[in-house]
Amino acid sequence: MGELCVRSVLVTGANRGIGLGLVQHLLGLPNPPQWVFAGCRDPKGQRAQELQNLASKHPNLVIIPLEVSDPASIKAAAARVEELLGGSGLNILINNAGIAKPSSLDKETLETMTQTYTTNTVGPLLLGQAFLPLLKKAAQGSPGSGLSCSKAAIVNISSIGGSIASASAWEMIQASSYRCSKAALNMLTKCQSLAYKEHGVLCVALHPGWVQTDMGSSAGHTPPVTVDASVTGMLKVLSSLSEKDTGTLLDWEGKVVPW
Amino acid sequence: MGELCVRSVLVTGANRGIGLGLVQHLLGLPNPPQWVFAGCRDPKGQRAQELQNLASKHPNLVIIPLEVSDPASIKAAAARVEELLGGSGLNILINNAGIAKPSSLDKETLETMTQTYTTNTVGPLLLGQAFLPLLKKAAQGSPGSGLSCSKAAIVNISSIGGSIASASAWEMIQASSYRCSKAALNMLTKCQSLAYKEHGVLCVALHPGWVQTDMGSSAGHTPPVTVDASVTGMLKVLSSLSEKDTGTLLDWEGKVVPW
Repeated sequence: MGELCVRSVLVTGANRGIGLGLVQHLLGLPNPPQWVFAGCRDPKGQRAQELQNLASKHPNLVIIPLEVSDPASIKAAAARVEELLGGSGLNILINNAGIAKPSSLDKETLETMTQTYTTNTVGPLLLGQAFLPLLKKAAQGSPGSGLSCSKAAIVNISSIGGSIASASAWEMIQASSYRCSKAALNMLTKCQSLAYKEHGVLCVALHPGWVQTDMGSSAGHTPPVTVDASVTGMLKVLSSLSEKDTGTLLDWEGKVVPW
Repeated sequence: MGELCVRSVLVTGANRGIGLGLVQHLLGLPNPPQWVFAGCRDPKGQRAQELQNLASKHPNLVIIPLEVSDPASIKAAAARVEELLGGSGLNILINNAGIAKPSSLDKETLETMTQTYTTNTVGPLLLGQAFLPLLKKAAQGSPGSGLSCSKAAIVNISSIGGSIASASAWEMIQASSYRCSKAALNMLTKCQSLAYKEHGVLCVALHPGWVQTDMGSSAGHTPPVTVDASVTGMLKVLSSLSEKDTGTLLDWEGKVVPW
């Protein structure tokens, strides 16, 4: 299948971890996108320094202020991206921004449940709605039939933690608010795939592996997968997706993860 | 397997639909529970009239004010039930209260998503936490080993609408906020089953069928399953559950529903 080759991508939560890795690898592709939009809560802040450094070297990288739990911020980001694209569409929306609170079940509250759901599940829903016009435009402007990431796609970064069937690593980390939000994100991906198929938009959920990021290490364990390995794998998976894959949950090596 | 035989049950959302049907059938069992607690948002209101009529005829039915989206209301309900039980435990918590908004995906908002999640998913989590001491007490006070509903159980009324694998009836009703909340409820059931097994509490999610209730009929269709058939089936299923069933999703006829 070769390398991913697209004109424009938006990555949310792009200032660190997997989001930053995705941006770096997209910029390093043999045929990098003409536009890499990096959504970030606080573009001027200390935690966005690496993203700022990258942007100073790559004119095709644009940092977009984006708080995915805030509908107004999402709308403003979509308007800004539309303006920059100047009449062309957006090929890929990567909903990567997410939070995790490694509580035990008895410590979860209305607040932990709602906050996690808002960022991890509602954010991707609202982003899908807000960027749908640009994704449709990209799909319409691409040659050939069928769905693919080179035309238009929504990629939801989910987790095997959201797999009800596997209940992965329960003994190590309960994090029920996170698991529930990711199971719901998997359902959202299925809903988006059914609703947006007619618009030519492929929708997929990806499990990035248990990755060496701040989030992955937050419960005091050392995750086995590097950011590089995860991101290289996921971009390869994206380049290979076709219509049969829409609405599925795949890991960073392309294997189907059970619901 | 025979009939369900337990000392105490709490049903949330008990003033109409499946909740009211569960209360009626529990009261009509050959050996009815000594306590049937009927959780209801507004016990004095017009919509609780049928429940009030039942309570006037059945001294073992107690109506408990309960708003499942309000942590304080849940705590007050648990305290009231504990007081009434006077030192004995609660055998079954049936998390039946739920809401559904039959929107299309493009009409869902932060509000529809969050409200539906709070009632359908967070409520059952908080109720499980609040009633765990009483459920543990019932489990400890029951003879024999292994899990069963005659000892202690959390029963989450879920839906095939929350089955990601089946994406049931999408063409008729999108209701993504509902589907996401029920997929998350299925995950919660799995989490509860893993966390509460050591306390002797069986946890199961049930799909009641597509039932002739206000909710079932809300999108202008006529559901195929009567409340009586659904409730009769579910109580039979509950009476037959054992340790191997904890953490599963079953329909009202006892068939496993895929995640």
